[in-house]
Amino acid sequence: MERMSLDPEIAARLKRNPEGLVPAIAQQYDTGEVLMLAWMNDEALHRTLTTGRATYWSRSRQEFWVKGDTSGHVQHVKSVALDCDGDTVLVRVDQVGAACHTGERTCFDADVLG
Amino acid sequence: MERMSLDPEIAARLKRNPEGLVPAIAQQYDTGEVLMLAWMNDEALHRTLTTGRATYWSRSRQEFWVKGDTSGHVQHVKSVALDCDGDTVLVRVDQVGAACHTGERTCFDADVLG
Repeated sequence: MERMSLDPEIAARLKRNPEGLVPAIAQQYDTGEVLMLAWMNDEALHRTLTTGRATYWSRSRQEFWVKGDTSGHVQHVKSVALDCDGDTVLVRVDQVGAACHTGERTCFDADVLG
Repeated sequence: MERMSLDPEIAARLKRNPEGLVPAIAQQYDTGEVLMLAWMNDEALHRTLTTGRATYWSRSRQEFWVKGDTSGHVQHVKSVALDCDGDTVLVRVDQVGAACHTGERTCFDADVLG
């Protein structure tokens, strides 16, 4: 039977912010493009690891956000890594279409400083 | 004369967390490796933009952290971008040596999940 919540060994290593979230960086697995940053709680990380679809916690809507469910711009998960402090997740994905809601390929394309 | 604080046009677009910080993703500019995630306040972003050295705010030490000042593992800044929401910074750098304090090249090398 599929585990219903995050593996306790992973959960024990996670360092969450006061809202119970960690930042998750989405990166295109083959080109290396940094696509976006979103947030995960334990359940979003569990779903990301078990469903193959990058799943975040929407802080504005206060609900799970399966990337692409509305836009079609799905992220197929290739690998997931925790950083050395356990407070950031790196999700390598295959991004369908644009990662950014503005239609740009990445959320960092439009506003280069200096 | 050099501006002493962050450009007000940039500052107006930044969306900070309750501690006045935004997450900053450091990426190796040529290989695309995601090296680490750290945090910046306005002044750290200003210093990053004006000194050519990636500079963060250390939440544990509550002080500015010029990456590499202690370790020699300097990050030479190639470009800086804000994301579409103004709440995340992407810093493309040329990383000298290891980005991670553990000696790994990136902070995401050691703990691949699932």
